Amino acid sequence: MTFSSDNLIGGARVPGSGTPWRAVEAATGASLEPAFASATVGQAEHACALAADAFDAYRATPPSARAALLEAIADAILELGDELVTRCMAETGLPRPRIEGERGRTVGQLRMFAAVVRSGAFLGARIDTAQPERTPLPRPDLRLCRIAVGPVLVFGASNFPLAFSVAGGDTASALAAGCPVIVKAHPAHPGTSALVGDAVRRAVTACGLPDGVFALLFEEGIAIGQHLAADPRVAAIGFTGSRRAGTALMRIAAARPIPIPVFAEMSSINPVILMPAALAARGAEIGRAFVASLTLGAGQFCTSPGLVLGVESPGLAAFEAAAADTLSGVAAAAMLTPGIHRAYREGVAALESNPAVARVAQGQPGTAQQGRPILFATTGAAFRADHRLAEEVFGAASLVVRCRDAAELRTVLEGLEGQLTASLHLDETDHAAARGLVPLLDRKVGRILVNGFGTGVEVGHAMVHGGPFPATSDGRTTSVGSLGIDRFLRPVCYQDVPEALLPAALTDANPWRLPRSVDGAAPGA
Amino acid sequence: MTFSSDNLIGGARVPGSGTPWRAVEAATGASLEPAFASATVGQAEHACALAADAFDAYRATPPSARAALLEAIADAILELGDELVTRCMAETGLPRPRIEGERGRTVGQLRMFAAVVRSGAFLGARIDTAQPERTPLPRPDLRLCRIAVGPVLVFGASNFPLAFSVAGGDTASALAAGCPVIVKAHPAHPGTSALVGDAVRRAVTACGLPDGVFALLFEEGIAIGQHLAADPRVAAIGFTGSRRAGTALMRIAAARPIPIPVFAEMSSINPVILMPAALAARGAEIGRAFVASLTLGAGQFCTSPGLVLGVESPGLAAFEAAAADTLSGVAAAAMLTPGIHRAYREGVAALESNPAVARVAQGQPGTAQQGRPILFATTGAAFRADHRLAEEVFGAASLVVRCRDAAELRTVLEGLEGQLTASLHLDETDHAAARGLVPLLDRKVGRILVNGFGTGVEVGHAMVHGGPFPATSDGRTTSVGSLGIDRFLRPVCYQDVPEALLPAALTDANPWRLPRSVDGAAPGA
Repeated sequence: MTFSSDNLIGGARVPGSGTPWRAVEAATGASLEPAFASATVGQAEHACALAADAFDAYRATPPSARAALLEAIADAILELGDELVTRCMAETGLPRPRIEGERGRTVGQLRMFAAVVRSGAFLGARIDTAQPERTPLPRPDLRLCRIAVGPVLVFGASNFPLAFSVAGGDTASALAAGCPVIVKAHPAHPGTSALVGDAVRRAVTACGLPDGVFALLFEEGIAIGQHLAADPRVAAIGFTGSRRAGTALMRIAAARPIPIPVFAEMSSINPVILMPAALAARGAEIGRAFVASLTLGAGQFCTSPGLVLGVESPGLAAFEAAAADTLSGVAAAAMLTPGIHRAYREGVAALESNPAVARVAQGQPGTAQQGRPILFATTGAAFRADHRLAEEVFGAASLVVRCRDAAELRTVLEGLEGQLTASLHLDETDHAAARGLVPLLDRKVGRILVNGFGTGVEVGHAMVHGGPFPATSDGRTTSVGSLGIDRFLRPVCYQDVPEALLPAALTDANPWRLPRSVDGAAPGA
Repeated sequence: MTFSSDNLIGGARVPGSGTPWRAVEAATGASLEPAFASATVGQAEHACALAADAFDAYRATPPSARAALLEAIADAILELGDELVTRCMAETGLPRPRIEGERGRTVGQLRMFAAVVRSGAFLGARIDTAQPERTPLPRPDLRLCRIAVGPVLVFGASNFPLAFSVAGGDTASALAAGCPVIVKAHPAHPGTSALVGDAVRRAVTACGLPDGVFALLFEEGIAIGQHLAADPRVAAIGFTGSRRAGTALMRIAAARPIPIPVFAEMSSINPVILMPAALAARGAEIGRAFVASLTLGAGQFCTSPGLVLGVESPGLAAFEAAAADTLSGVAAAAMLTPGIHRAYREGVAALESNPAVARVAQGQPGTAQQGRPILFATTGAAFRADHRLAEEVFGAASLVVRCRDAAELRTVLEGLEGQLTASLHLDETDHAAARGLVPLLDRKVGRILVNGFGTGVEVGHAMVHGGPFPATSDGRTTSVGSLGIDRFLRPVCYQDVPEALLPAALTDANPWRLPRSVDGAAPGA
């Protein structure tokens, strides 16, 4: 064991207190060494105080320094080598290729934000030049750029132990924006968190940045996390997890003397809409691809296809038959935590016992730790009558809604809550009908896909991993992709401020060679 | 009387019900014809239903159509001619040059947003091109643009009867973004609202747009406004007014089954910091300029300088003496409403009766409708000890805080809440000291000014009229300037969507010739 189970505060290892707890090996349910002890309230407050102290120095760093930090973190994660992969596999039950892939994604994400910071466009610099001769009043010199909001509290997610965790997208974008980060590690993968946290700590030190730029706190329960969310020094919150936990954070944030934004990515059933011509032409093929998406990572994705809509037809029957055939051969798979597995079994049992729901197929039975994938079906009328059927069952469970006709399918869509994604499977002859659905879907979701599934979220500039409530707490943002940096910035205007007092981003000298918009024109360097 | 006092719903005049009420002539307290009757709950809901119905058609309009609407509104406002000016003067007590200037600003604002819409940059279009050969997984075609959030509820402000009211910045930016707008008229200037509302209604009709794009509702109280804020069809709220009303809207919005963003611009005392060298060189000159800003529009600006900070010195004494001398010659001025006048008198009386506060000077006495400007002073220690001294007194009242030294001045600043603006008065030899204050100020405010005052908010691309809570409900936004459009947009990603189904903004054809960022590069048309 080369890692410490201590909290990381101010660049130092700080032992927690209280009853020690251990991670659980997902595949077996066995305890994993070492023991972790939760951070205390005092330690949490100390981390906030250090973050607040570090804020001014950190946000004043030039883009090159922040980019160097992000790249140093990426390198330090890779230097953890196989110990990170094996620990992460043990804690999550996810297979090696997935963990190695997720590590690549996490490192790529850090490097993307390094490039975003270097380009400087994220600062949104704008200059309205002075017009001293204007009548009746002269126009002042106005310069705008975006500044970091302050220390950001990040909650690691259970289902992406690297990409949405200690050095995941929230952390990378907050650090890129110039915000110190306090991470509350997810208790399902504390060893993974400790390893990555130490990589971040070493990178901060190596880059000569203030120790308060990063802290990692452990907790098995929720009290410390909630205490942090209410701390006056925390300026924003990034969260990926359940609707219950996310809305609890929203309430805490709104009730503070000074409310702060919460960027919570919560729940989604990601409707898959099967259009008639596509179904007729290749229902079975779509069915097989659907099962591959559904069972990926034991269905433990925010973008897992939990709902399928199609009009009753031979094509839909072929889809279901092929999906059933494929699914029945899929092995059960370890789930991330005993709690997630329990919730999955309960969700499946509720559907099993619903008289309006039929089981279409299920995968192979597994061990006590493994989730068995399952596919259900119901009618459009039944779905519309029972809102419980639209609730997310986190894991590889999905529900086909057999609609009477296109009108009922549309009605079902209209009744859905906000979603992260919607997928349309269509052929060219479906275009006319699909055109009518797009304006219905885009106001419900953050991403519309054609002939694909929402799993496998590309980290890029044009990605939106977000969507209207309750998919997220703020549908105007994304938690994946370069646009995610916007969450942690706010604009400030400097009016008639002399060159010597302007932030570097706005000086005439423009030392960072930022692209800046002058008098409303498109930005140029 | 050429205007109707009816609500405007669905392009039609719809009489309200309930006890009729009349506007009050600000200068005399007399009632103004005609009588207005509040909209009913049913009428408010009907306006929401029409806005929701109009949303898809309106947001699908090309930028040129929306720009044409904004320009048609500007023209229609100008066509109202002097009737608008005289009615507005009567309802607000503001002098002709101010109203004519505000009309120019309002019209200019609409035209600026027309230009913003035509340029298309506000859509933030981004394309990540497909990489079908990428291994291990191909990269999909990803295209992002921002879409309108939905119908926006706008509350007119009492103190800017044109620029922050029926066709003010919130309405202009929401319409520019593609959102239908429902305006709740401020009861202090219903006639002005009716005139401008009818201009908007005519422009909507002339442009051939759906009637639901705009509605204007009257109400003397707050019940209809609160009902509208909770209506499920309302997607966002723009508000300018008191902290009490703004935070009430925030609570309503957060408690909805689907929470929505509230962009409330609330309260600010706009600290003015007098640096030593500037004070020594030209304390008296600054004092005279300060009084001009303080008494502009009877001090009824969100950016009025309600707090002055300086270190005790001959320069500060000269500032105070000159301010006192100037202020004592300033006439009292009509205030916007009896309620605002009452609150002003109460705020002034509380300061008068505070033993730690001394009156420096006051303006000429006036009529029962007029507010008498006043300047107070206190010590840094007293200010820090009594948080009531930091509360906004809306009107031409201000408080000089005489600080013992620069350290105490800094401590006072550190204790302030979020503000719209902070002004620094400085000379070149103050730069070193001021440099230490900028990072303290920019995290407290939306705009930092040097050698000026916050009143006179320029409408431009680099303006920020915003700031951390409680100056606004969301410090990441501005309610003045072209960046204000961001409030009413959210990003959507289209993955592998065929050309025929993409929104026009993202097609290969790019019919609107939008600037678009491709693979993370700077946008080019």
